[in-house]
Amino acid sequence: VIPRDAHNPWYQRPAEPLEGDALLQVDAWWRAANYLSVGQIYLLDNPLLEQPLSRDDVKPRLLGHWGTTPGLNFVYAHLNRMIRQRSLPTLYIAGPGHGGPGMVANAWLDGTYSEIYSKIDQSTDGMRALFRQFSFPGGIPSHAAPETPGSINEGGELGYSLSHAYGAAFDNPNLLVAAVIGDGEAETGPLATAWHSNKFIDPMQDGVVLPILHLNGYKIANPSVLARIPEDDLLALMRGYGHNPHIVSGGFDGEDPLLVHARMAETLDTVLNEIAAIKQDAADGTLEGTPRWPMIILRTPKGWTCPVEIDGLPVENTWRAHQVPLASARDTEAHTRLLESWMKKYKPEELFDSAGRPTPFVTGLAPEGYLRMSATPYSNGGLLRRELRMPDFREYGVDVTAPGHETAEATKVLGGWLADVIRLNPDNFRIFGPDETASNRLQEVYTATDKQWNAEILPVDLNLARAGRVMEMLSEHQCQGWLEGYLLTGRHGLFNCYEAFIHIVDSMFNQHAKWLQVARSIPWRRSVSSLNYLLSSHVWRQDHNGFSHQDPGFIDHVVNKKADVVRVYLPVDANTLLSTYDHCLRSVDYINVVVAGKQPGPQWLSMPEAVAHCTRGLGIWDWAGTERPSDEPDIVLACAGDIPTIETLAAASLLRKHLPELRVRVVNVIDLMRLQDETEHPHGLSNRDFDTIFTTDKPIVFAYHGYPWLIHRLTYRRAANANLHVRGFIENGTTTTPFDMLMLNNLDRYHLVIDAIDRVPGLGSKAAALRQEMQDARMRARQYTREHGEDIPEVAQWLWSGEDGVGFDRQNY
Amino acid sequence: VIPRDAHNPWYQRPAEPLEGDALLQVDAWWRAANYLSVGQIYLLDNPLLEQPLSRDDVKPRLLGHWGTTPGLNFVYAHLNRMIRQRSLPTLYIAGPGHGGPGMVANAWLDGTYSEIYSKIDQSTDGMRALFRQFSFPGGIPSHAAPETPGSINEGGELGYSLSHAYGAAFDNPNLLVAAVIGDGEAETGPLATAWHSNKFIDPMQDGVVLPILHLNGYKIANPSVLARIPEDDLLALMRGYGHNPHIVSGGFDGEDPLLVHARMAETLDTVLNEIAAIKQDAADGTLEGTPRWPMIILRTPKGWTCPVEIDGLPVENTWRAHQVPLASARDTEAHTRLLESWMKKYKPEELFDSAGRPTPFVTGLAPEGYLRMSATPYSNGGLLRRELRMPDFREYGVDVTAPGHETAEATKVLGGWLADVIRLNPDNFRIFGPDETASNRLQEVYTATDKQWNAEILPVDLNLARAGRVMEMLSEHQCQGWLEGYLLTGRHGLFNCYEAFIHIVDSMFNQHAKWLQVARSIPWRRSVSSLNYLLSSHVWRQDHNGFSHQDPGFIDHVVNKKADVVRVYLPVDANTLLSTYDHCLRSVDYINVVVAGKQPGPQWLSMPEAVAHCTRGLGIWDWAGTERPSDEPDIVLACAGDIPTIETLAAASLLRKHLPELRVRVVNVIDLMRLQDETEHPHGLSNRDFDTIFTTDKPIVFAYHGYPWLIHRLTYRRAANANLHVRGFIENGTTTTPFDMLMLNNLDRYHLVIDAIDRVPGLGSKAAALRQEMQDARMRARQYTREHGEDIPEVAQWLWSGEDGVGFDRQNY
Ligand SMILES: Cc1ncc(C[n+]2csc(CCOP(=O)(O)OP(=O)(O)O)c2C)c(N)n1
Ligand SMILES: Cc1ncc(C[n+]2csc(CCOP(=O)(O)OP(=O)(O)O)c2C)c(N)n1
Ligand SMILES: [Mg+2]
Ligand SMILES: [Mg+2]
Repeated sequence: VIPRDAHNPWYQRPAEPLEGDALLQVDAWWRAANYLSVGQIYLLDNPLLEQPLSRDDVKPRLLGHWGTTPGLNFVYAHLNRMIRQRSLPTLYIAGPGHGGPGMVANAWLDGTYSEIYSKIDQSTDGMRALFRQFSFPGGIPSHAAPETPGSINEGGELGYSLSHAYGAAFDNPNLLVAAVIGDGEAETGPLATAWHSNKFIDPMQDGVVLPILHLNGYKIANPSVLARIPEDDLLALMRGYGHNPHIVSGGFDGEDPLLVHARMAETLDTVLNEIAAIKQDAADGTLEGTPRWPMIILRTPKGWTCPVEIDGLPVENTWRAHQVPLASARDTEAHTRLLESWMKKYKPEELFDSAGRPTPFVTGLAPEGYLRMSATPYSNGGLLRRELRMPDFREYGVDVTAPGHETAEATKVLGGWLADVIRLNPDNFRIFGPDETASNRLQEVYTATDKQWNAEILPVDLNLARAGRVMEMLSEHQCQGWLEGYLLTGRHGLFNCYEAFIHIVDSMFNQHAKWLQVARSIPWRRSVSSLNYLLSSHVWRQDHNGFSHQDPGFIDHVVNKKADVVRVYLPVDANTLLSTYDHCLRSVDYINVVVAGKQPGPQWLSMPEAVAHCTRGLGIWDWAGTERPSDEPDIVLACAGDIPTIETLAAASLLRKHLPELRVRVVNVIDLMRLQDETEHPHGLSNRDFDTIFTTDKPIVFAYHGYPWLIHRLTYRRAANANLHVRGFIENGTTTTPFDMLMLNNLDRYHLVIDAIDRVPGLGSKAAALRQEMQDARMRARQYTREHGEDIPEVAQWLWSGEDGVGFDRQNY
Repeated sequence: VIPRDAHNPWYQRPAEPLEGDALLQVDAWWRAANYLSVGQIYLLDNPLLEQPLSRDDVKPRLLGHWGTTPGLNFVYAHLNRMIRQRSLPTLYIAGPGHGGPGMVANAWLDGTYSEIYSKIDQSTDGMRALFRQFSFPGGIPSHAAPETPGSINEGGELGYSLSHAYGAAFDNPNLLVAAVIGDGEAETGPLATAWHSNKFIDPMQDGVVLPILHLNGYKIANPSVLARIPEDDLLALMRGYGHNPHIVSGGFDGEDPLLVHARMAETLDTVLNEIAAIKQDAADGTLEGTPRWPMIILRTPKGWTCPVEIDGLPVENTWRAHQVPLASARDTEAHTRLLESWMKKYKPEELFDSAGRPTPFVTGLAPEGYLRMSATPYSNGGLLRRELRMPDFREYGVDVTAPGHETAEATKVLGGWLADVIRLNPDNFRIFGPDETASNRLQEVYTATDKQWNAEILPVDLNLARAGRVMEMLSEHQCQGWLEGYLLTGRHGLFNCYEAFIHIVDSMFNQHAKWLQVARSIPWRRSVSSLNYLLSSHVWRQDHNGFSHQDPGFIDHVVNKKADVVRVYLPVDANTLLSTYDHCLRSVDYINVVVAGKQPGPQWLSMPEAVAHCTRGLGIWDWAGTERPSDEPDIVLACAGDIPTIETLAAASLLRKHLPELRVRVVNVIDLMRLQDETEHPHGLSNRDFDTIFTTDKPIVFAYHGYPWLIHRLTYRRAANANLHVRGFIENGTTTTPFDMLMLNNLDRYHLVIDAIDRVPGLGSKAAALRQEMQDARMRARQYTREHGEDIPEVAQWLWSGEDGVGFDRQNY
């Protein structure tokens, strides 16, 4: 019952009943936070209600959400008490992020807010400004946004609080993450599966998540499911999820809040002691099986403490309390009076002195310094972030003696390097994936680590362990949510996923991009590591899984976000992938999308070439074209993506052989953002550079990995756009061979040659025979697949032929 | 224990132990289906193994998934037996859709496959073709795709089986939907929350979903979570979800499958009797509370019956059985022999006659006709689809005496019409939404119906009932999945959602679009109703919720899909919304995206004008411009979306007043696909029409609802593209006033005037004063919001002024 050591905040202490001043203090904090929340939603002026509340004191547009707020404040107050007792670093996650006013109120009470935003000090003026700015033009958002101290979860799009909480807890063994989950939020898919995260927590190495299911009974306009199932079912559900549930229920039918405080405090003591016991067992090596972590079900009325009825309709404890319960506060004198009496019920005169400062009795509940939940560095992860120790990627590359001679699996090579990233950074780097890390060929990481798994392990299992750097659960939402939580608390990682199924987290990507964009402009928010995607098993190599697995549209989705936060890379081989990923893992505040193949493929660039090419982001591959130094090219064959690059080089090879006089320039693009105008994206090439490379007047046949129109979009301001002819995925997919997939979408080498013939002025008739040959080659290749079920050898065994100018029918590799 | 009436298939019957021939028959079916599944994955030829299996009989590319298949086949066999006993129409949903070979095998065995695909008949040749076509170029996909009879769930992207199952069950009171859920699939978010669907099933009006959790222990490379938690937890979880779980476990350590069959049959009997009892109670009016529907946990080895070990590594009952367990079947003689002995273990000679036909003993297990699960019309919903009875939308419109004089809330007006759609179609039309139907202002539907809710109902609740046409759960995944299941079984509906959060189902949209695209080309698949979105609470009117709620990118996502399946509409007022939605609800085989405002806004078109405008899809609003019949315009102001239309008209009004000589043409676009080339989209305007409307050489200032580049993309082939200047959402969002949001993105009326001035050649200096005035107006408007928290009256109270040419400062409405 004594802490084992000063640095271990996990210990059992006898539960003290909450009573006397201690009880009143918790209640005072809660009342103060509630008062400040209502004030933010409603008031422009008269913050202390020193004058009778007038219509003009009330905001003309009433925006904000009251319903969730008293519950959020209640939990905050109790956690304060607990932290003061235990000095336990605690991160508060407000699932219902629409309870923004509550989070701001608590931050103001514990002093953090004024430290960060000096104008919003603890004074009457500060309080007035605090109220006014909320949801006000030029002010602060209504949600627990990046502007809100203590927040890593905006909570506007519901569903991610628990995943974020677990992400924050990984590798923070002494951190408690208290996650308040709305009972409506709990109906979302991501949240419903996030409960299982407890099977992925290692009691030694990781922190503890304390889920607090906020059962206030309602959503916007409906009861919540979990509030309306039998309590036995709810308890069974939580046990089924592996938790030990504790119910705190109260505040109904006018029950005195002091009674509810007492129950909550007792439960919180019990729960913390349960957690400490698990931690102790783990430390002692006496833990058996998966621990049954506690969780709290907090059943209180929605909108608790607001008017019970308004205009004859029940409001407190109904869905009507969700947003602004008294939307008519300016409309009639009676309504204005009702608002006033609501606010006065909190007894502001007891809570704030005449200068608008919260009384010492109230603020006495706040923990000190960084232990304040609004000030915790865990919510501003850049403060804690340590740079990764990076092994020199150049040493992991493929030895490329000449373009296209060696074969390698790009992601597999990357896996070798990642294994060493893991070795060098054993406690702040993780790989997340929905059961696909091996399928995406990163299996070499298992030479350095295991998959973390705290459910049952059987002798047959491979690479599973209680602690490990790879997190695999069949939920893209969980992978994304965990990683976000991990990054926002100052660590590093990547998410490897099938390209098609990354769309599952489109909306999560949106929210994270928005967070990063806003956070950039907030001076006190420090940079966090970029969120790195590795999309393998991509559209051109899902021929065995078929149409549902073929979708390269995530890139299109990504480029809708602000240029300062998104980057898209399409490395073409192992060395360019290594160079790209090294760059991504070093970067901050971006979302990096990297699409890379996992199948054996030709290696084009030596390591120095790869580094140079990746640094440029795009470039002419003179060894692949047939330009002469003095001439202009007749045509540009451009490509982006590993498979389109192969086809483009094969097409260049065919043209070289069959139309040796044609001056072909081959351009490869790794960094897609280079195509954009420099005014649109920081990576954008200047028009001069772009025009030099792509020409302004020559036809360009662009073989692109994804949907072709994106290339038009990125280049629409370029002179070359009118001459641009893009091939890509045009939504023709099925289960077939890789080359058949290309032919289905006219992205195959033969079609690229046809495109070239059709575009170069004057070539048409001269090259008619070749054009026909290409059509025949397509038919032959198609036919071969229908007979043999695999690709025709002239394609399957094709190798770039270098200087000799053959290649089309070269088979001797 | 006797059926109450012939049409009621729900009745209790004494459980008969499965033994003797009946037992052997179930086993024979299972063995036959397993044999045929292995054959599909591996064999090119020698289907009956009449010759010793040779290397050349084996496919060169081995593609497919074995691991899930024996389980799927096992369930199929047992359901067959049950259906024969009870004549119960049953729809089979294979969650692990990668078990495609199993579904195909069963369909071939029950005869459906050969009826549909006559070449694949029940003969040796047919079997050869059956094997060969699987995952073969020009053949069939590896998943339970549209090509697969009996399927409404492709199951490539995991997670939607249970939502689909419930969608199918709504309003089909006599249908059993057996949903096999992978234990990996069960880890996905959508699946984890879909269990709660049972609280939305009305035992009277709806069918029954029987979830069968297929606990084969593994995913691709990992154990599944649910297989590795204590069994007590698993049972608690299922009880917590409201189910009565039944475990069937077996097949481990070489247990005789006959024993497992007997247990499964007994459980299925019990379960069906439990269901019948609930149905009976419901019919008798004696049902208390929410029924506790049964579900089955089926614990069998992954890859059951495949080789126990291969090359010294355990395969059966491990993740190694997931895909192709014997990937080396062609590599060595020993491996080929192993494949042969694996297949022979099923004793094909007992299952098929020498002509390759399954024996009568095997096929005797199949139900008759439409009761065969592969032939059930519920899996080909177009067969069952009844057209909606449509109230005449013209009678629900807003009386528009002159453009812009009346004010209405578009979605509210739509709600009035939808109420009557519901009245006229009480059993085949539903509205789905994540707790936002009222927030999206469709509340008038509650005059006709309720929200369906089968958990506890309290006196305080409004519009909740056991049965109702509105389905609200806080899960966009569930809304989408339910609706898909509902449509694919032949009904009608819509999904109303906040615009930003529809991205949550981006990937589900993808999968449904792919399904529709493929289904179109399958002759036996009949047309199903379109999937209709109503995206309200859109980017320009989420100013109170802020940045996380502001995202118009779903349209961009949608247009990546094939033109024959997607449609996007941006009605500008109530009448155009009504006309658009009438069209959408009548259409088939599309996905219609309709974005429409819910806030009070000006009404532009009378009903006849609205119908004409919507039919054209876009058009010149001559009353809004200042063209003269003989002249060409100097500039085109184009707009799409309700808010951009207001700004464009306000800009036109300003230009009319301040630059009366300028010839302005106003074009409004409702049907976004009209902008595309007619070769790219069936709705695309011919170039001639396009050029006439937009001109080929005049500047176009296009005010667009979403991300501006989409308009460039849609028009990139048009002559006008070079003159096109698009304003839209450029990812500048926050909590502020509506007009401030527009200004942040340069989409406000003042900026549009500036854009016009900047684009019309020669106007610049003449209009310098106006340009400056517009800049001042922007500053004034911004400043006003900062002071008052709401929009400046000249904007907030602005009304289109018709002929008088004022409007800029008109306040007298
Ligand atoms: C994914 C998602 N869908 C819909 C909404 C719209 N919405 C905002 S608040 C809310 C209800 C939330 O209920 P709950 O989680 O119980 O929070 P509380 O009752 O504490 O306000 C909904 C549906 C949303 N924010 N996110
Ligand atoms: C959403 C999604 N993520 C990832 C995958 C890749 N994937 C294909 S099968 C599979 C494992 C499925 O396991 P389970 O549901 O248990 O099916 P079974 O064991 O019956 O094959 C995975 C992860 C997928 N198909 N869908
Ligand atoms: Mg709630
Ligand atoms: Mg499984």
